[in-house]
Amino acid sequence: MRAGNQARSTGSVTGRALRVLEAFSPSAPVLTLTEISRRTALPLTTAHRLVNELADWGALERDPGGGYRIGLRLWEIAALAPRGLGLREIALPHLSDLARVTGENVQLAVREEMSVVYVERLAGRRSVPVLTRVGGRFALTPTSVGRVLLAYAPPDVQEVALAQRPVRYTERTECDPVRLRQALAEVRHTGVAVCERQVTMDSVSVAAPVHGEGNEVVAAVSVVAHIDSVQGHSLVPLVQVAASGISRALGATPPGSPASLPLGAVRGSARR
Amino acid sequence: MRAGNQARSTGSVTGRALRVLEAFSPSAPVLTLTEISRRTALPLTTAHRLVNELADWGALERDPGGGYRIGLRLWEIAALAPRGLGLREIALPHLSDLARVTGENVQLAVREEMSVVYVERLAGRRSVPVLTRVGGRFALTPTSVGRVLLAYAPPDVQEVALAQRPVRYTERTECDPVRLRQALAEVRHTGVAVCERQVTMDSVSVAAPVHGEGNEVVAAVSVVAHIDSVQGHSLVPLVQVAASGISRALGATPPGSPASLPLGAVRGSARR
Repeated sequence: MRAGNQARSTGSVTGRALRVLEAFSPSAPVLTLTEISRRTALPLTTAHRLVNELADWGALERDPGGGYRIGLRLWEIAALAPRGLGLREIALPHLSDLARVTGENVQLAVREEMSVVYVERLAGRRSVPVLTRVGGRFALTPTSVGRVLLAYAPPDVQEVALAQRPVRYTERTECDPVRLRQALAEVRHTGVAVCERQVTMDSVSVAAPVHGEGNEVVAAVSVVAHIDSVQGHSLVPLVQVAASGISRALGATPPGSPASLPLGAVRGSARR
Repeated sequence: MRAGNQARSTGSVTGRALRVLEAFSPSAPVLTLTEISRRTALPLTTAHRLVNELADWGALERDPGGGYRIGLRLWEIAALAPRGLGLREIALPHLSDLARVTGENVQLAVREEMSVVYVERLAGRRSVPVLTRVGGRFALTPTSVGRVLLAYAPPDVQEVALAQRPVRYTERTECDPVRLRQALAEVRHTGVAVCERQVTMDSVSVAAPVHGEGNEVVAAVSVVAHIDSVQGHSLVPLVQVAASGISRALGATPPGSPASLPLGAVRGSARR
């Protein structure tokens, strides 16, 4: 298991080149050479050589303003990530249906280490604003997609996640590990996660698991709505239908909702 | 200008690491170590070390089947590419509107060297099948998005593109450089490109330019439909409205369609 966002192999040239890419962030999508040198703690001459090599290949591009930005060539290669655009391409028609029928925010997410990573996000026009962006990360326990992904994760991942001190986004954010553990059991029992006022006081999110070819949980799909505009539980069947449709498109069998199976079967699949 | 898909700096360690990433393709999204070694022409021990470093950072992931695939961490970083997901995020609401109103395939593309790269693609449910995928490349001259991007490209790019021998996808694919040059002039004059039966005999595509902050053309949006189901020209105002909406969201001014400006102004902007 690698150490979060930190490049471990920082001693190697590859590690240093990856550190240059890692210097870019949503709040700093364009960087000058000096900023890259400072953020990577690499000497200016080293940074200059690496930036030139990366730009030569297309992993970085010159920005019209004079700095550097992540290049389209890297995005082309990264589009091959099965858990990125590959998953998104298969899921999009189902997500669009869900967005059209509900008029709310629709999200598709996977787990990467101890975070949710959003692979797709369709913003509802008249819905509650959400804090996420495609390619962005968020905590596991306060989001409905995160609870689904954690509920079906290996036990050691669950233990690490529950041992972490959660960020208290609102006065209602659940931070008690015992109640969080109960919530995860409930997700495995019902096949759905409902989170009220966990990230913002005005939102409710409902998520269901997406199963891959071997029936393992590979992603989660959710609707995020204004808590005053909908009954969270009325969204459950809609989210489950979308999740089943994506699972079927990914080759999962049987496509039946976990809640319709005998409890033993659900528990069994949760242990995969 | 870098040499197409080839990593020039193949001598450097960075170049070799990038060559490993480049070994993956839409037709080969999962590779074994031996395949990576063969495709990169790197000794197995070198490939092994580079793959480990890339996997350690998350640029590659182990596939459940035992091979390697492009990792989600690379996709997260690549999502910061302003011409990739950044552009797509801004454009999506306008593209969705266009897809809903027309019921046809909607595409958003940028130019990378001598290719079109598709940044977004919404497939029309009952429309003609299209050959593209998000992150995929296609030739410039037979596609309406490519003609728009080429029409507003620097003159040296146009000369190189017109000097290339085009692939003849259908008996109607325009391959004559003189008539292609006329077609580009027509695009600059009308602000729109219409391509009939250029890639498949049953399709028509209509594209309009998307302008960036400095009013330069940064992308093109198109509708691809079955040639028997629509009059191509009836799609023109719809595509132009979507393109204007995206341009405005990107900060372009004035948002007026080029066709409504005096011809001199259009020609001037074409020379940017």
